Formats: sequence, structure tokens, C-alpha cells
Amino acid sequence: MTPSDPGATTACEAALVRRYAAVRAATVALAAPLSPEDCALQSMPDASPVRWHLAHTTWFFETFVLREWRPERPPFDPSHEYLFNSYYNGIGAQFPRPRRGMISRPGLEEVLRYREQVDADLAELLEGGALEGPRGEELAARVELGLQHEQQHQELVLTDLKHAFSENPLHPVYRPLERGAAGPAPAPTSFEPFEGGEAWIGAREGSGFHFDNEGPRHRVHLEAFELARRPVTCGEYLAFVEDDGYRRPELWLSDGWDAAREHGWQAPLYWSHQDDRWWQYTLGGLRPVDPAEPVTHVSYYEADAFARWADARLPGEAEWEHAASERPVEGHFARPGGEHPFPLHGEAHGLERLFGDVWEWTASDYAPYPRYRPAEGAIGEYNGKFMCNQRVLRGGSCATPEGHARATYRNFFYPHMRWQFSGIRLARWLR
Amino acid sequence: MTPSDPGATTACEAALVRRYAAVRAATVALAAPLSPEDCALQSMPDASPVRWHLAHTTWFFETFVLREWRPERPPFDPSHEYLFNSYYNGIGAQFPRPRRGMISRPGLEEVLRYREQVDADLAELLEGGALEGPRGEELAARVELGLQHEQQHQELVLTDLKHAFSENPLHPVYRPLERGAAGPAPAPTSFEPFEGGEAWIGAREGSGFHFDNEGPRHRVHLEAFELARRPVTCGEYLAFVEDDGYRRPELWLSDGWDAAREHGWQAPLYWSHQDDRWWQYTLGGLRPVDPAEPVTHVSYYEADAFARWADARLPGEAEWEHAASERPVEGHFARPGGEHPFPLHGEAHGLERLFGDVWEWTASDYAPYPRYRPAEGAIGEYNGKFMCNQRVLRGGSCATPEGHARATYRNFFYPHMRWQFSGIRLARWLR
Amino acid sequence: MTPSDPGATTACEAALVRRYAAVRAATVALAAPLSPEDCALQSMPDASPVRWHLAHTTWFFETFVLREWRPERPPFDPSHEYLFNSYYNGIGAQFPRPRRGMISRPGLEEVLRYREQVDADLAELLEGGALEGPRGEELAARVELGLQHEQQHQELVLTDLKHAFSENPLHPVYRPLERGAAGPAPAPTSFEPFEGGEAWIGAREGSGFHFDNEGPRHRVHLEAFELARRPVTCGEYLAFVEDDGYRRPELWLSDGWDAAREHGWQAPLYWSHQDDRWWQYTLGGLRPVDPAEPVTHVSYYEADAFARWADARLPGEAEWEHAASERPVEGHFARPGGEHPFPLHGEAHGLERLFGDVWEWTASDYAPYPRYRPAEGAIGEYNGKFMCNQRVLRGGSCATPEGHARATYRNFFYPHMRWQFSGIRLARWLR
Amino acid sequence: MTPSDPGATTACEAALVRRYAAVRAATVALAAPLSPEDCALQSMPDASPVRWHLAHTTWFFETFVLREWRPERPPFDPSHEYLFNSYYNGIGAQFPRPRRGMISRPGLEEVLRYREQVDADLAELLEGGALEGPRGEELAARVELGLQHEQQHQELVLTDLKHAFSENPLHPVYRPLERGAAGPAPAPTSFEPFEGGEAWIGAREGSGFHFDNEGPRHRVHLEAFELARRPVTCGEYLAFVEDDGYRRPELWLSDGWDAAREHGWQAPLYWSHQDDRWWQYTLGGLRPVDPAEPVTHVSYYEADAFARWADARLPGEAEWEHAASERPVEGHFARPGGEHPFPLHGEAHGLERLFGDVWEWTASDYAPYPRYRPAEGAIGEYNGKFMCNQRVLRGGSCATPEGHARATYRNFFYPHMRWQFSGIRLARWLR
Repeated sequence: MTPSDPGATTACEAALVRRYAAVRAATVALAAPLSPEDCALQSMPDASPVRWHLAHTTWFFETFVLREWRPERPPFDPSHEYLFNSYYNGIGAQFPRPRRGMISRPGLEEVLRYREQVDADLAELLEGGALEGPRGEELAARVELGLQHEQQHQELVLTDLKHAFSENPLHPVYRPLERGAAGPAPAPTSFEPFEGGEAWIGAREGSGFHFDNEGPRHRVHLEAFELARRPVTCGEYLAFVEDDGYRRPELWLSDGWDAAREHGWQAPLYWSHQDDRWWQYTLGGLRPVDPAEPVTHVSYYEADAFARWADARLPGEAEWEHAASERPVEGHFARPGGEHPFPLHGEAHGLERLFGDVWEWTASDYAPYPRYRPAEGAIGEYNGKFMCNQRVLRGGSCATPEGHARATYRNFFYPHMRWQFSGIRLARWLR
Repeated sequence: MTPSDPGATTACEAALVRRYAAVRAATVALAAPLSPEDCALQSMPDASPVRWHLAHTTWFFETFVLREWRPERPPFDPSHEYLFNSYYNGIGAQFPRPRRGMISRPGLEEVLRYREQVDADLAELLEGGALEGPRGEELAARVELGLQHEQQHQELVLTDLKHAFSENPLHPVYRPLERGAAGPAPAPTSFEPFEGGEAWIGAREGSGFHFDNEGPRHRVHLEAFELARRPVTCGEYLAFVEDDGYRRPELWLSDGWDAAREHGWQAPLYWSHQDDRWWQYTLGGLRPVDPAEPVTHVSYYEADAFARWADARLPGEAEWEHAASERPVEGHFARPGGEHPFPLHGEAHGLERLFGDVWEWTASDYAPYPRYRPAEGAIGEYNGKFMCNQRVLRGGSCATPEGHARATYRNFFYPHMRWQFSGIRLARWLR
Repeated sequence: MTPSDPGATTACEAALVRRYAAVRAATVALAAPLSPEDCALQSMPDASPVRWHLAHTTWFFETFVLREWRPERPPFDPSHEYLFNSYYNGIGAQFPRPRRGMISRPGLEEVLRYREQVDADLAELLEGGALEGPRGEELAARVELGLQHEQQHQELVLTDLKHAFSENPLHPVYRPLERGAAGPAPAPTSFEPFEGGEAWIGAREGSGFHFDNEGPRHRVHLEAFELARRPVTCGEYLAFVEDDGYRRPELWLSDGWDAAREHGWQAPLYWSHQDDRWWQYTLGGLRPVDPAEPVTHVSYYEADAFARWADARLPGEAEWEHAASERPVEGHFARPGGEHPFPLHGEAHGLERLFGDVWEWTASDYAPYPRYRPAEGAIGEYNGKFMCNQRVLRGGSCATPEGHARATYRNFFYPHMRWQFSGIRLARWLR
Repeated sequence: MTPSDPGATTACEAALVRRYAAVRAATVALAAPLSPEDCALQSMPDASPVRWHLAHTTWFFETFVLREWRPERPPFDPSHEYLFNSYYNGIGAQFPRPRRGMISRPGLEEVLRYREQVDADLAELLEGGALEGPRGEELAARVELGLQHEQQHQELVLTDLKHAFSENPLHPVYRPLERGAAGPAPAPTSFEPFEGGEAWIGAREGSGFHFDNEGPRHRVHLEAFELARRPVTCGEYLAFVEDDGYRRPELWLSDGWDAAREHGWQAPLYWSHQDDRWWQYTLGGLRPVDPAEPVTHVSYYEADAFARWADARLPGEAEWEHAASERPVEGHFARPGGEHPFPLHGEAHGLERLFGDVWEWTASDYAPYPRYRPAEGAIGEYNGKFMCNQRVLRGGSCATPEGHARATYRNFFYPHMRWQFSGIRLARWLR
């Protein structure tokens, strides 16, 4: 990860300090429209309160940077090691995740003070020459990991909050959302063909930051396939709903059918039917479903059932990455007022919306790449231990911070989960 | 309830207005030491957030007073009918009780504004002559019911908050608590004898406010019995614990044994064993168990098992009321810094601590008295529909507002519940 | 219990031996129409397989009679102490009740052999002079307790089997049932009045066998009341159903309403609506609901809601016993082909069907009578430890063995339970 | 599947008829040592009663063969379509799987009659010329599918029964088991190396029977790897247990750690620790754990944790198949008295025990091969809809019928499941 050229240290150092400040400030900015009570909500075990995210990301820097590079520094508060450790057994026991919403203290103000103190200590460390020291490169890499980690939590702040707000019958507005420019309705999707054969996927060593789960780079064999030029729209998904998609078991995986019945799924999460019309709850409040928008908040099971209904399938992650690897990482990423996918217009030219808008479910099990080994120590728990039972999603979403996504990026969730901005891109075998 | 002498109307009116203001202010004062996040906690379905209590008690006046006596007044916010209705099906559907902690809006500030508005409207109603109108007595009675209702919720504010705070490993302090004067250790309890025969229990019509469940007054037959002169202490309860009380099924009701094993009970709620010592969490934080204090936060099952171990039994509610009916309603009721039972000292002279300190579990099923009929309409749901599966508790506690308890007062909870200030007074058959 | 006149010992002995054989044979006869697989069914934790009942009742004699009076006799199989102990902690650990259906061995044949061996050993004991020995009276009483216990399990054999068979979509027939003589439709019920005042209830010492929970005899104060002259019919209950009885919360106890919604109750257990008609599953198979029959398989909650709908209430157990105490114990008790309540006809003359047909829910909590003390030792677990959370039922049913019921008999079940032959008799206050 | 040479039809026909009779008889033979009650046990929702297996496999032939080729034949019993349909939504609704043990009728005798009738009808169909008819090849393929299906259920009969018997504290003996020849203790395993590169996996069209999930044959890219020459033994697994394998979260997948704690796993299923020794329940009763046996009844999570502890990994299914594809399908498959893995001895020469003894967990998600399409109609539900959340196992076990396994065979179970004869073979990356 980010090995730095020794000659450029000072500029690098300044850049890292600036980047640190910017990323950290962005998290706090996300909480600005929220009351202390908003920041305290935990609506399900999978989600966490915003205040917890603010604290946990800070704990990450305190634990994995300050504690290692400034072992003599006393912790801001010794209880944080227990309260704000997410899942690092190597660090110690953790306050039970499903009860994170059950504690009101330390409150929001105290957590913001915690952030300020750790930020000050980090700045002092980074500006104090440690980056030029013997473990300077490691320090830079660790800080970068902390920032990438923080960006992942920025996305969770939005999705966890959305889930919590959706419980409130008043449909709270996080902030008013833009609606995207007007334009012609999206045309039926076309497909981009790809030849089969051997392909390389995974992040190249030394090519800039990537998580450990993106490597090692390795060969795979691909069969010829084609990929839809744009994600599935709400309008298309509605046709599936209206064609009894949720009542036809032959369209579903067995586990998906069971999940749909157990949870009473009739449509994507946050959709509701009222007065003969479909509505969706968004971070900007309740609004009608726009058929031109990419559909989102669907589970893997729904994505898979839709694909079967559409006589297609979901892409494998290798196919997706192969298709994306030469394309620029551009799209609708998170920005204030842009926390919802934007409508599509007209004909797609080339692969549209690969990045941003909605994460795209792939058919791939989240598994280690050949010769993958997690790092030694507690930091090795970051990714590796989750490589079972989850599905890979690709491309980033409207809640992913700008600059965070890339072609090799592997997001992963359980197939029944719907509270991320997850959507669908179809694929088909060729020939 | 409270029929008023027509000649005294104005004084009564002024008194009611003052009493209204005082009771309402007391609820807000309970929340003063709390942050908005503290007020948002719901730690179990049986408990509610403090903010919800603040809103619900206000909704009660808006619904059962303003809506009836000022039907033209628009509601403060139409959503409150759904959000803050506790269990009155006659009014309409209710936001699910276990999810009360899941909504952050309306927030604390908004709820306090709601209180102010309803209080202003009530004052205007009461001072505007409505009390002298044709339904004046009914109005006075309804307002009094609302105030008694509010006082019940004042107790719940404390017990619900205590339960929520107890989840926090930091042991938050609600406020510092007094410890009571020093004194000699309590002597072993003696028992006060009572002759058997016919007795009258229940509230007399026209004898001042009482809830409908306290009447009608009626005859019962009592066998000769004796009642412990003081509640069971922590020291006595500790002896039960140390005599393997929680590991001897022969001491327990079958349902109690199952509950104790299911929940892993080893001691009263909020007790913990650390460094060879018993601690208890209180609203003043963690402190050692004081053997001289009345034991509290025990379930009916534990109270019953303790009594069996002590070769005694729990009193019936008629016995308790018969014994209490001629005694003054004095004791340690709720006041700032007094939200915990106070230690006992030396020998008991007569029946001590009947009122205040801890609610005393009785062996009586919470059942309607002969010829009991709930009121017509939604207000009739106040008490009657809960008359099944619960046990009666008597006497009030250190969290009960001064002036709220009386000899005929019937509190009731399910036998497994422990988060109220519930304690034990023993009884025995005579002869 | 049953103290015997020393002069009559030999006749008594012979009578007891005969009675023992008859009662024991009756249990086996109940299983005669069943296959080994039928006898293995356990459809819910509250119910047990028929084979288990056959074994457990035998274990009861082996444990509480043979082990005490013939301590030198080796157990038939040492594993039975664990496998067939129901809930006697004083004897030892028990195989988990909800898993009784999970073991296929010892099989039916082996269990019948167990019965034969214990019966032979009992006969030898009883005929060998032990009844005349120093603990002879105690032995006779213990054997009688075992027989009464066996008769209770005979009723459970039928109700547990009915529940299990009802799971089978083929509606198995246990045996063809009689339908009762034809006759005029039952007239609307009239009520029998009773004066208030002091009354004695409970079994008299020395008055013949009774369970310990039926005493001590004691005084109660009754208010004037009246009791319906016959149980509620299916036709009456149907009117409640059709008057939206299951959809009107104001008719229900709060816990009852929750139970009804949780379990989706729409009618009594075993009723189903098909082709515009109500059917009920009986031990004789599926047949139309007969409006003239006493309604059965209702929970306490349903009985209570029906009573409220009918502007009446359920009787207290003291009222019921007071009314029943002077009446002969006659009615439709269990006999082959009679395992279902029989239709009512015309006008009721006096209190009809107090005994037999259906158990009648009372409003009384199952609680100890004044000065009640369970026996010492494991046998004391028979009744006392269940005195919480249950409601008393009175009168016996069409599944109760002839000779088993009496006016003081207290049956008890949890208020949500429906698989017993439980029905409804209404009461009202007088004046 | 199995297209047959038209010239050989008559011999083929006779062979198929013989094979049909043999496979069907083998199922009945498995039930021979069992009582009707044994055959009725269902100990968990994942397992089914033996009697149900006997009926369901018969229903399969009745539904997918007789109903299609003899549509005029009335069903043996119309209720069987509902009772014995496992999961084919295309056929209709199914009796709920978790309640299969709740029905006692049709009983074992009736089910055996059902088998006889269907077998007679099948024989008549097959011998009556239908195999030479226009859909003769399809019929032969369908019958073969039914037989392979029956063999899968033969394995389940043993594993489901073992699970049910294990609930019985008496440790029932299904039948006495052989113990395998004596021999030297197994030497530490060595590894067989394989070069990386492109490989073909999956069943070749026309190469004999295979399930649809085994194809299409396709290319994969393999990295160089090595495969343990024998499965992991109980002795090796014991070393993991004793090295605190079940208490070290760093060895486990996150989901595995949660599962282990939730279920309280301390050792493989059926192991118990008593008197300082490890015992295992087998179909031959309780016996000491033999360190030389392949370990079995471990979940995927345990297999994965063991591999991490051993500094190795589990093979991918493509690696396994690549290694197995040139080797003879020989090993300890099911036979009377052989229903348990056999001990290993000395040094392994080449890949030992690839087939038989224990199924080997692979690291591979159970996913469709490229271009896989399930068959049209209800029969297409056989495999495809289960391709999510499960892991592939390879090689067959001591409960797999002889002749049923092959190199391309893909078995699949959820990663937490332990009641199959599942074991571990290690793999490592080369270089």
C-alpha cells in the first residue's frame, strides 16, 4: 500500500495531513443536519448509531496508529477500547453490537471532543517527523487505511441513518435532495459483448491503495459474455413486481423465496404502495418511485429473481472487473443533496453508471483470491474473516465518497440485506 | 371521583390549576439532569424513553380533556394521536411499543414545546369557567385522573431510565443520592398479629380520588394472620442467596424456577458480584449492597421463593390493606436525591415502611373486585383490561411521588418483572 | 386421604387391588386403537406422546410406591428414572419435556412390558400384607394417589392425541363417536340465583380422596350472584364469532388480545371454515360444528371475551363450588365413543351439565387455599409449585374418567391453552 | 443423461428393471432393523423420518414417471402429492417440512404397501415396451434420475436416523459395526503436488449419468497447489481441540465463530467427553474416539478453522476434481455394518480415501457452472434453486451407496451443518 518515494516525503506528508483533515471533517459534516437523538438511533443489529460511527472511526486511529506509534500516550478514555471496538478480537472484548443504541453516554458532544483530541494527536504525530522515521511508510499506509476505513463508515452513516429514519412514520428529511436533470425516458438496455479466455483480475501490488481483499492479482478463465449497458431501472423492476414476480417461486432461489416470505417482501426496501401508487422513502423524505432511476435497496435474492425473470443472470465479479478495468472511475458518488441514484435518460452509450449510483450485486461468493493472506495481528481481522456466506458487490454508490471506489474494489453483504444502495446490472452468456 | 362542593368552586378551581402546574412541572424537572440522548433510550419493550413519557402524558390531557371539552381546538400535531397513544384501542392504532426508542423525531425540544402548548390550553380551559359548567365536575375528575396518570409515569420515568442506564458499562449517575442517617443494624423482624373474620376492603365512594380498580368497596373473609413489621433487608436476602436460594428448585414456583434459569438470575436485578463483594447499580451510580436497606428489584418469583425459604409467605392484598387501612400514609417517597430505599435501623415498632421505599409484592392475582365495571369508552381501558396474569403490589416506593399512594392503591406487574422498586414483606398464618 | 377402618382392611385391600387393576387396564385400553407410531407423537411441548403417558404413570407407581415400600427391589430399568420423571426435581433430573417425542426407544412393546412388571410387583405388594402393616394407610393413600394421577393422564392421553392427530391433514379417526340423541334445539339459557354471604369451600378432611390442592376447607365471602343453567353452546359462540368477536379489542383482556393476534385465532381450536361452513376436528374425525353442543377447546381469554360480549362474566371458583356442592356428580364422562361433548336440548331445568362434557373456566387464579401446605418430599411437587399464572377449571369433561371428578376438584391450565375440553358457563352479579 | 444405443434396448431394459428392483429393495433393507417408531422420528427440520424417505422416493417415481407416462393411472392416494412432495413448487403445495415427524398416518405398513404398488406399476411400465417407445430414452433417463435420487435418500436415511438416535440418552444401536483391520497408526500426512494452468472440470455430455449440476464441462484456471494424501484424522482433530481450537477466534471465520458460540460447539457432532475420555456416538452405539479414523461430522466452519490452525486451507472443488478425475472411484461406501469411516494406517501412498469414508468439504460456494440451465418444469427444481449459501463437498462417504459417487459429483450443504459424514482434506498453495 502507498509506498512513498523518500525524496518526496515532505510534500507527501503535507498531502497526507491535508487529506486526513478533509476526510475526518467530511464525517462530521455528515452529522451536521442531525440532532443528538438522530445520532443515537440503532434500528437493527446490522446498523449502528451515527454517534457510534463517529466514535469508532476515531477509535480506529487511536488504536491502530496512536497506540502503536505513540505507546506512551494515555488513551483519551480507557472505556473506549471496549465501547468502540467493532469486531477486533485481537484487541479485546467488544460491547455487544446489537446494543449500541442502548447507551446514551458518552453523548454526541463528548464524542466530538474525542474526535478533536485524536485529530490533534494525529496531526502532531504526522507533522512531527514520524513519517520520515524508520516505520514512516508503514505509518503512512496505516493512516491511509484508517482514512479508507473512515470513508466506508461515511457510507454506512448514510445507509444506517436511512434505515433508522424509515422507521419513523413521519418520514424525516435528512436533507432536501436534487432530482437530476429532465430527459427522455431510458431506452431498453442493450448489452456490451466480451470475448472469453484468460483474464487477470485483482489489484496490482504497488498500484496505489487497495484493501487486502482486492489482491493478489491473478488469472481467471472467462467464458464469452455480455453485460447490460446500464443498471436495471425502477420502471423495469416495477414490471417484474406487476408480473407477480414476488409470487412465483420458480423465479427464486430457494433461500430467497424463504426470505421473501419470512419478511413479507413485496417490493424493494423503502417502497410502499398507497393510493394506487408506489412511493419510496429517501433521505429527502417520501416521494413517488421514479421509473427512470436505477432500482436500489434490493437484496441479492431479488436481484437474482429479477434476472431470471428477465432471462438473464447476474455477472460474476471477474466479468464485472474485466469490463470495468479499462474505464474511468466516474459517476454519481456521495455529495450533499446527491444521496440517491439519479435517473437514466435515453439510449446508453457504452457501459453507463458502472461506478456510483448503486452497488451492483454480482453472482460471486465473497471468497479469498488465490494465495490471499490477511495481515498479521488484529488488523488482519479487517476483511479476511468475513469471507463466507456473502456476495460481492461492485462499483460504489451515491453514498460512496468520491475517490473511494475503483475497479478492483470488493464490497460484500449477505444476500438478504437490502439497506445498502444495492442495485442490479444484468449479464448473459454469449453464444 | 372528587365531587366538589358547588359553593367552593373558585377555590377548588384555583387549587386544581395550581396542582396541575405543579404536577406537570415535576415531570419536566425529572428530565432536567438528562441529555436528549438519555431521554431517547428504550432498553426493553416494557420500558419507554423518557421523552415518550413526556409526550404521552401530554397526549393524555390533549385526548381525554382538550378533545372532549374543546373539540374545536386543532390538535398540536395530528401525528401525536398515533405516536403517543399507549394502549387505547378506542382512540385508534398505536405506534408499536417495542419500537418507541426507534424514532428520534419529534425530538426533546419539540416535545417540550408540545407540553407547553397543552399546558397553556389546559390552563385556559380550567380558568375559563369550564369547571363551573354543566360538566364541570366531570372535567375536574378527568383532570385529576390525568394528574394521577402523570404521577404514575413519573415513577416509570425513574424506573425505565434506571433500566436503560444499567445497560451502560460506565454506570451513569442520574444524580448523587443521599445515603440515609447512620444507625444500628436492623434487628430480626417481629410480626404484628391480626385476627381473622370479615373485613371491608376497597376504596369508599366519595372518599377522594382513587382509580376505578380500587373499588367497589366490599367484604372479604380473612383468616387470622401476622405481618412482618418491616420489609426484608438486603442482608436477609443475601443469606438466601448464600444458602443456594437460586439453586434449590424446591423453594420456587415452577414458573419462577423456569424464569430464573432462562434469565440466569443469581441475585436481584442490578446486583453484581465483583472482587468478592456484592454491588448494586443505583440511580446514583454503582455502590456496595447495604445489608440494612430493604431489598428491591426482585421479581414476584424471587419474593415468593425467599418467603418459602424463610418459612413464611407473601401477604394477600386484602391482608395488607386491612393492616394498612388505619395507618398514616407516610414514608420515603420520591424526592431529588432520594430515589433509592433507605436503610432500616434497630427494632421495628409497629408496621414500619408500609408506605414508600419499596412496593411490596402480594400473593394476590390482579383481579376485578366484585361488581367492578370499567368506565365506558376508551378511558375504560385504563385498568380493566390488564386484570389477568399480574400480581398486586402495595404501598408505593421511593420513586412514587409524595401524595400519590394510599392504603387502597393497587399497583400490578407480571410476576417475572424486576425493574420496579419492588420488595418483600413477609406474612404468616396464625395458629 | 382415605383413612381406612382397621376392621375392614381385607375387603378394602381386595377393593384396592381390583381398583388398581381396573384403572391401569383402562389406560392400556385407551391405546388399543393406536399404532406404535400414533403412540409416539408429540405435537407440542405441552403435550406428551401416549407411550410416554403409559410409561410415566407406571414410573409414578414404581417411584412413589415400590421404591418406598420395596426399597430392595431393583428398578425395572434404571434409565426410566430419568426418562419418565415428569417434573419431580426432588427425584432427580428429567429428560427435557419438549423432546419426549424425539426418542423411539424404549418402544411401545417395551413400555407395555414395563407396565406389566410394575403391575405384578404392585399386586404382590398389595396382596402381601403391606396394607395391614404399620404404614398401611399411607400405602393405600399413596396407591390411590397414583390411581387418581393415572386418571388425570387418561384425560391427557385423549387431549394430547387429539392435538397431535389434528396436525394430520388426513383427519385421522381415533374411533367413531356417538352423536347423542336428537331433540329440540337448546333454549336461551336461564340463570340460577344464589344469595351472598359466608360460604365454606374446599374438601373436608376425611371425606374421601381429594388432592391436596382442594383443601383446607375454609370460609369465603360471596356476593349474591347467578349462574347460567347450562354451558355456552357452539351456536351461541358462533354468534360471537360472526359479531366480529375476534376483531373487537374492547371485548378482550389485553393479554388475550395479544394472544389471539399472535396465534391468529379466529374460532375455537379445531374449528375450520370451509365451503361456507364451520367444521371441527374431533376424535371421530372431521364433522360439521353442531350448534347445540357445548362449545369446547376455547382458551380462558376467549371464554372471558365471550362473557363480556354476552354482558356477563365467568364465575369464581368459590361460586361454582358453592353452587355444585349439593348436586350429584353426574354427567357425560369419558367412555369409548363418547369422547366429545353431547348436544343440549330444550330448556335447562336447574344447573345442567355442571359435571362432564366440558371443563368450565373460572375467573379464579389457581392459588393455594389458606393454610395450604404441600406434602414433604418430592410428592409435594405434585400440585403446589404450579400455583401461579394459571386459571382454575371445574366440573370435568367428556375425557375425564367416570368417578374422577367432584365438586371440590380443581383443574388448572394457563389462560392461553385450548387443547383441553374447556368450555364456558356464564355468571352474573345479582342486584 | 444416459442416451442409450437403440440396438441394445432389450438388454438395457432388463438391466434397468433389475437395477430398479435392486435400488428400491436397498432402501427397504435399510429400514429392516428399525421399529415403526424408529422410522417416525424427526429430530430437526433439516432431517426427515425414515418413513417419510420411504414414501417420498416412491412419490418421486409416481410423480415424475408414472404420472407422465401413465397419465390415466389414478394415484395410489391423492393425499400423497401433498404429504410427500419435498420442495417441488411446480407440483404444488407441500406439507411443512419441520412437521414431517408430526404425522403418524399413513404408517409404516401403509407406506410399504405404497412402495409395492408403485414398484409393480413401474415394472409393468418398463417391461411393457415403453422404453422402446418414442420417449423411451427420456423414460430411461427419468427412471435413472429417480434411482440416483433414491440413493441420495438412502444416505439421508442413515444420517437422519443417526441424528435422531443421538437424542436418545440410551444410545440406540442401529446395527453392530465393523471396526476395520488393525494396523500401524497413520503417519503424518504428505501432500501431492499439482501444476497450475488451465483445466477442464465438470461432467462430459454423454459420459454416463450425472446430475445437471455437474455440467456443463468447462475450463478453469488453477494455480499450482498440493493436496493432502489422506483426510484429517480424529487424532489430528483432537490436537486442534486440545490446542484450544474452539476458543481462539483468530482461527475462525466470523460466521463460524458465531455459530460455534451459539451452538456451544466444543468438538465434532456426536463427540462427548466423559471420564477424561472422548466418546462418539455411532450407528453402532457409543464408542471411544479412534484417533486413526478420519474425523467426521464437522461443519465447514470447523473444517476451515482446523485448516487455518494447520497452516493449510481447504481445497477448491475444481482442484479436488482435477486431482480426482483420473483416479478410480473406489473406497469405503455404504454396506451393512460399514456405516462409519474406517481407520487409516501407516503412510499414505498417493491420494488415499478420496472416495468414500467421509465427504470432503471444499472451499467452493455451490454455484452454477457457466451456461448451466436447469431443466424445464418441476424437475428443474432438483438442484438449481439451491445454488446459494451452500458449500460443495466431494467424494462420497461411508453412507453413500456403492456406485453412486464419481469425480464430478457435487454434494452441497450449508456451512453450519454437521450431521452428514463430512470430513476434511487439506490443501496448500504451491510456491
